[in-house]
Amino acid sequence: MENAPLSRRVLLASVAGAIGAHALRKAGVAQVPGHLPLPPDPTKVPGAPSSELGQRSPFERPRRIPVGGAQGISLAPLQDLHGVVTPADLHFERHHAGVPAIDPHRYKLLIHGMVERPTVFDLADLKRFPSVSHLYFLECSGNGGAGYRGARPDFSPQLIDGLTSTSEWTGVPLATLLREVGVKPGAKWLLAEGEDAAVMARSIPIDKAWDDALIAYGQNGEAVRPEQGYPARLVLPGWEGNTNVKWLRRIEVADAPFMTREETSKYTDPLADGTARMFSFAMDAKSIITFPAYPVVLPEPGWWEISGIAWSGRGRITRVDVSTDGGRRWTPAELQAPVLPKCHTRFRYLWNWNGSETTILSRAIDETGYIQPTLEQLRAARGVGTYYHFNHIRTWRVRRDGTVLFGLEG
Amino acid sequence: MENAPLSRRVLLASVAGAIGAHALRKAGVAQVPGHLPLPPDPTKVPGAPSSELGQRSPFERPRRIPVGGAQGISLAPLQDLHGVVTPADLHFERHHAGVPAIDPHRYKLLIHGMVERPTVFDLADLKRFPSVSHLYFLECSGNGGAGYRGARPDFSPQLIDGLTSTSEWTGVPLATLLREVGVKPGAKWLLAEGEDAAVMARSIPIDKAWDDALIAYGQNGEAVRPEQGYPARLVLPGWEGNTNVKWLRRIEVADAPFMTREETSKYTDPLADGTARMFSFAMDAKSIITFPAYPVVLPEPGWWEISGIAWSGRGRITRVDVSTDGGRRWTPAELQAPVLPKCHTRFRYLWNWNGSETTILSRAIDETGYIQPTLEQLRAARGVGTYYHFNHIRTWRVRRDGTVLFGLEG
Repeated sequence: MENAPLSRRVLLASVAGAIGAHALRKAGVAQVPGHLPLPPDPTKVPGAPSSELGQRSPFERPRRIPVGGAQGISLAPLQDLHGVVTPADLHFERHHAGVPAIDPHRYKLLIHGMVERPTVFDLADLKRFPSVSHLYFLECSGNGGAGYRGARPDFSPQLIDGLTSTSEWTGVPLATLLREVGVKPGAKWLLAEGEDAAVMARSIPIDKAWDDALIAYGQNGEAVRPEQGYPARLVLPGWEGNTNVKWLRRIEVADAPFMTREETSKYTDPLADGTARMFSFAMDAKSIITFPAYPVVLPEPGWWEISGIAWSGRGRITRVDVSTDGGRRWTPAELQAPVLPKCHTRFRYLWNWNGSETTILSRAIDETGYIQPTLEQLRAARGVGTYYHFNHIRTWRVRRDGTVLFGLEG
Repeated sequence: MENAPLSRRVLLASVAGAIGAHALRKAGVAQVPGHLPLPPDPTKVPGAPSSELGQRSPFERPRRIPVGGAQGISLAPLQDLHGVVTPADLHFERHHAGVPAIDPHRYKLLIHGMVERPTVFDLADLKRFPSVSHLYFLECSGNGGAGYRGARPDFSPQLIDGLTSTSEWTGVPLATLLREVGVKPGAKWLLAEGEDAAVMARSIPIDKAWDDALIAYGQNGEAVRPEQGYPARLVLPGWEGNTNVKWLRRIEVADAPFMTREETSKYTDPLADGTARMFSFAMDAKSIITFPAYPVVLPEPGWWEISGIAWSGRGRITRVDVSTDGGRRWTPAELQAPVLPKCHTRFRYLWNWNGSETTILSRAIDETGYIQPTLEQLRAARGVGTYYHFNHIRTWRVRRDGTVLFGLEG
């Protein structure tokens, strides 16, 4: 920061100097690869006209990281994001057989099984019902696995926990559709099935439908994006990502779970005692510091704002504690208002770094009183062979040279 | 809606039939202009792999409408949007000399004038301060002029009121920067000046800086878009768009307004009595029904959800009344939670249309008790020659054939 006393006169003189052609030539122009040169003084040339669709500045290139090829995973750039809304083109992806190409005019949703009036809805039908919009997070149930095993110190927040994003979802409450078709007595579960090549299918307790489930066709104001389930998907607020079935084509109501491939071979949690838990739907409270975090290098000691996101599948985040001394002392961070249930909550904590090596970490507490566990607590409860629900505390090691590395041992 | 009883067996038989090569050939494929053909059954072919950046479905083409060429205006597609968040590439535009191309590494913000320590901040400086994020609407002060004079019945919500959008803005409170530079006693105004070819400049009462003004570098999670002020802009929540100076390069603190071109030749309001008011900063409470509205055609009588947005520059919307009989009876609509101050609020109202011609309209009430005026009330207060702050009630005429036309006479 330059603390030079700069009068208006000095500034104006400098501007006046810049308008000479000689000065323009001398100053040169900034060049962005693949783009037009930038003027040294943008006040001296007309700018670009208005347009039908905006584009990012060529200097800003946020990107998801696709991993695993056909696995259908891409991680959201958590360290590049502000606030809680995730731009739709940066929302994480997870699919089992690629993103299907669906003609919305052909789209149909069948609801059948233990219902009075089996019904096929087209997209216009879904849009005609009373709608709701909510900001909700989604998280892949396997998110954070890298932090449980296999992480490296040079992993960024994106690589550690990039399988979570928040959008404003708009759609029709599933309860409305169930009332429309008339659920028969004894119905307790429903099957949600996708129209992708994996025909992703999960069994959902019907109580979730009566609570807050919705069939969404809108995301951040526009149509749901293809990789998020276009033209319509299930949204089960707070529940593991895979149950929020995308490209939803069929709901079957029944009195028992369907024991699909996705809930037997996958999406169960082996426990330390050798048993496995099934239908572990809710995503537990979790948080991660996204700044400072690898690959950021703090250029100097002094005041820095630690910032990150916290979320819980069981409701609101009530507190996020931050520690800057490896977990000895914890202080509540500031939570960005409004704190919404089942939605990312941005936390911020002002830290005066004295320049010595230390470890910074955060822990989330939700409205049920649940406290984000340590890695040791999670390992003790689940063993080392578990594959989902990795919500243990993430730590970042700040070194004297300002580099920040992921902490492998919590 | 097909109410045919469809058993799972019938559905599975139909799916089984579709996988024969003969059936595939017979079914044909959907073709989107300029895109690959779509498979008749997306469950039978692998989908697209995950990617670094998502794209919209080729069936979804929301677009701003640029008008006036060099005027630098584009209107947001209000009738296509759900909820309250506006995707950044669809946020309305308004600029006086085009969108400047700015290298963020060269970006500087000077704060000087009646301050103890005149200071130049670069972008990293701004980002180092404690940050905040808020969902706020922006609205061009001339928004809605078409509804005041010159509108046609076939104008859409986009053409009537497309110069307003809501984003989650992230940045540093201006108050923080003013404390950093030390404001001298007697300071009452500040000049905010942009780095565009118009060098847009407005005088702002310093109390707004102490209240809720911020210098934003983030929009909906990502960097502010070029046409919204990249790399940093002023955000004055609830105040007319042009005062939210984009590409902000200079703030000068003073004891009186600067009487810039933009607040003398423009952005004053001629009144009915021949005088003019200046510095009419706050955007008054307003609402518009975005469905049903031109060009929508209701295919049949029955239940339809009337939906729209309401907002006030003075705080929260407390009620939106809807009338479906030309303004004789008014009923409160449902407001989408959370209702945030100085932010679009989505309202919804379930209407059973009996098929006869009628007029539907909405009126917003804010937390100050202010009620959105009729066109007659606005004309009486301001005369016909006014150019800004057109917040009168918008009406839509629903005809027997289901067409919906903009109501010219309120």
